[in-house]
Amino acid sequence: MSAEQNLIDLEIILPPAPPLGGIYKPCLVDGKYLYVSGHGPYQNDGTLIKGKLGKDLDAEEGKLAARQTGLAILSSIKTHFGSLDKVKRLIKLLGMVNAVPEFEKHPFVINGCSELFAQVWGNDDGVGVRSAVGFGSLPNNIAVEIEVLLEIY
Amino acid sequence: MSAEQNLIDLEIILPPAPPLGGIYKPCLVDGKYLYVSGHGPYQNDGTLIKGKLGKDLDAEEGKLAARQTGLAILSSIKTHFGSLDKVKRLIKLLGMVNAVPEFEKHPFVINGCSELFAQVWGNDDGVGVRSAVGFGSLPNNIAVEIEVLLEIY
Amino acid sequence: MSAEQNLIDLEIILPPAPPLGGIYKPCLVDGKYLYVSGHGPYQNDGTLIKGKLGKDLDAEEGKLAARQTGLAILSSIKTHFGSLDKVKRLIKLLGMVNAVPEFEKHPFVINGCSELFAQVWGNDDGVGVRSAVGFGSLPNNIAVEIEVLLEIY
Repeated sequence: MSAEQNLIDLEIILPPAPPLGGIYKPCLVDGKYLYVSGHGPYQNDGTLIKGKLGKDLDAEEGKLAARQTGLAILSSIKTHFGSLDKVKRLIKLLGMVNAVPEFEKHPFVINGCSELFAQVWGNDDGVGVRSAVGFGSLPNNIAVEIEVLLEIY
Repeated sequence: MSAEQNLIDLEIILPPAPPLGGIYKPCLVDGKYLYVSGHGPYQNDGTLIKGKLGKDLDAEEGKLAARQTGLAILSSIKTHFGSLDKVKRLIKLLGMVNAVPEFEKHPFVINGCSELFAQVWGNDDGVGVRSAVGFGSLPNNIAVEIEVLLEIY
Repeated sequence: MSAEQNLIDLEIILPPAPPLGGIYKPCLVDGKYLYVSGHGPYQNDGTLIKGKLGKDLDAEEGKLAARQTGLAILSSIKTHFGSLDKVKRLIKLLGMVNAVPEFEKHPFVINGCSELFAQVWGNDDGVGVRSAVGFGSLPNNIAVEIEVLLEIY
């Protein structure tokens, strides 16, 4: 199974890699580890999915934002390595949901990204440990931000 | 000193390992590292301690919720390995407190978990680096969520 | 280039290492890794920069708080090792901004720390992956909290 072949089979078109939004590296390699900075739901036209869960977006819309965030992460990884097949497995994911204080469905929202990674890297290698939690505010009022740690070949 | 013996001496009864709440692994082993997903204050009867610090719960109640979260983490680790003695030491802990904007006692709350880990694994090996901070919302309105990174034998 | 020499050239005076605020280690070494606990904007006189971004502090004031937090981290590292030259590079930084729900400039704020680390360790080694996000509350109402992972010699 190849992540690149899976992308083709799933007819997934990746957005461009998001532009830098501050002083950081989008990806950093340390031996067999790939650290990826917090990404937002960057879309193919260069816009971001914005708004707070529980006010501006419902859980289904948030889940799509999390999937889009996952696509942006894939794009940054592919830009860095040239191929998603360089990734062996997901180790850890932090799912940050921009939400009102009453929101409770963060895991459902972040599943939008986790399901994508399971499709791309498989149900075992594409699934790692995770926290999916609610932030009071996110940069540019994006709906979701996600950072990951991966193992690479 | 054995973590398993410490549990017995402290007369600690672990709750069941919490059920999966999304697409993730509760525990993931990478060489000498054990990553543990964000856990909530899962109780022996299968219910969760809910509510926001500074509104629904006071700091003492939050500290008990953090201790219960620690017990749930211990249960997941024991379920994964069969024994807590597989753990060499705590490296890192992220303590996430569900709190109103005015709440200021996050370290006091998360000490409920940190004191437990120090009792189980010792005052050196059971204590790692930590951030204890306030989240605007958490899944199912749980009072506390904690994720950890440990070194294993 | 030496981080210690850079401190002298930049005429930077580090604050004292912050006192412990709970049950954790300020720094933990694991092989070639240095984990640093969440630090606040601890100042030379022992006080903390407090307040919420978007209400009590504006983005420029928050950026100064992030820089001060970076100085506190440098002080803890220097206290631990005796020298900042023990650090090879920054791997990862989590920038936690105490903000009102409408705040959107977290990356600008956390750049205050990232610019400092780039000055001290260089534009490549001093820059790692990063998330800069908004928390509903932080301990003692500090304006910023930052935790880092570094590679050491």
